[in-house]
Amino acid sequence: METEDVRLIERVVVELERAWNAGDSAAFAAPFADDVDFVNVLGDHFRGRALVAAGHRRIFYTIYKGSRLTYEIENIRFPRADVAVVFTRARLMSRVGAAVDDPRRAERRDGTMGEAQSRTTMVLTKESGEWRIEAFQNTKVAEAS
Amino acid sequence: METEDVRLIERVVVELERAWNAGDSAAFAAPFADDVDFVNVLGDHFRGRALVAAGHRRIFYTIYKGSRLTYEIENIRFPRADVAVVFTRARLMSRVGAAVDDPRRAERRDGTMGEAQSRTTMVLTKESGEWRIEAFQNTKVAEAS
Repeated sequence: METEDVRLIERVVVELERAWNAGDSAAFAAPFADDVDFVNVLGDHFRGRALVAAGHRRIFYTIYKGSRLTYEIENIRFPRADVAVVFTRARLMSRVGAAVDDPRRAERRDGTMGEAQSRTTMVLTKESGEWRIEAFQNTKVAEAS
Repeated sequence: METEDVRLIERVVVELERAWNAGDSAAFAAPFADDVDFVNVLGDHFRGRALVAAGHRRIFYTIYKGSRLTYEIENIRFPRADVAVVFTRARLMSRVGAAVDDPRRAERRDGTMGEAQSRTTMVLTKESGEWRIEAFQNTKVAEAS
């Protein structure tokens, strides 16, 4: 039933948020499929939950240490009853601020916090009653727009 | 049959490429679903094929006039037999060069051409034997990576 599925999917998004804000890379990676395709805000394409966990372990200890993430769901579409595409707007407060897409600028930043906004598309499928993320892509919202 | 579906999906990607390189916004928008969710490289989220056509009409006459686009398919996954998620690496030669994610820098550019790379995720569904794009997102590949 779609209403129940929307609730379950919203819970997945909240799990990502909580895991990020706890700096817990294993919990962050948990809702992803074993072989997820993950495109980050730098346009890097990773394959597999293990790489998602490793990549987030690194950033949670460095540039995103102490950062705060919120996801606002802008739309959920169900191309099929057991396939969902979720569109979010993300707001991230971090020491990198708006320079999330430019590691060179980021390295020059000091300890102050600033906000970056991005949009994500996530493709989820329902397997044995559980929604897993099979594809994820993140795009920075341009500062000028 | 998946092999045949891969061929049909590859053809959709080639249609996008050809339409872009012909500066034909109607042809570019044609493979998208009526109510497509489209997140561009600036992180703007548009809804509907009409907005995809209008947005591309504008850029084909301005910053992307005379530009050349190629898509390389990096992966196609089939969460269901009639649902595909296509991952591409895009290369765009244009007057904007690598500044595709920064309209303010772009406006300062002169007539020379330069390359930008990005990655796209497209979600396609098969309806009456035809693959349509229901979701599209584009992320610039960071210059430093």
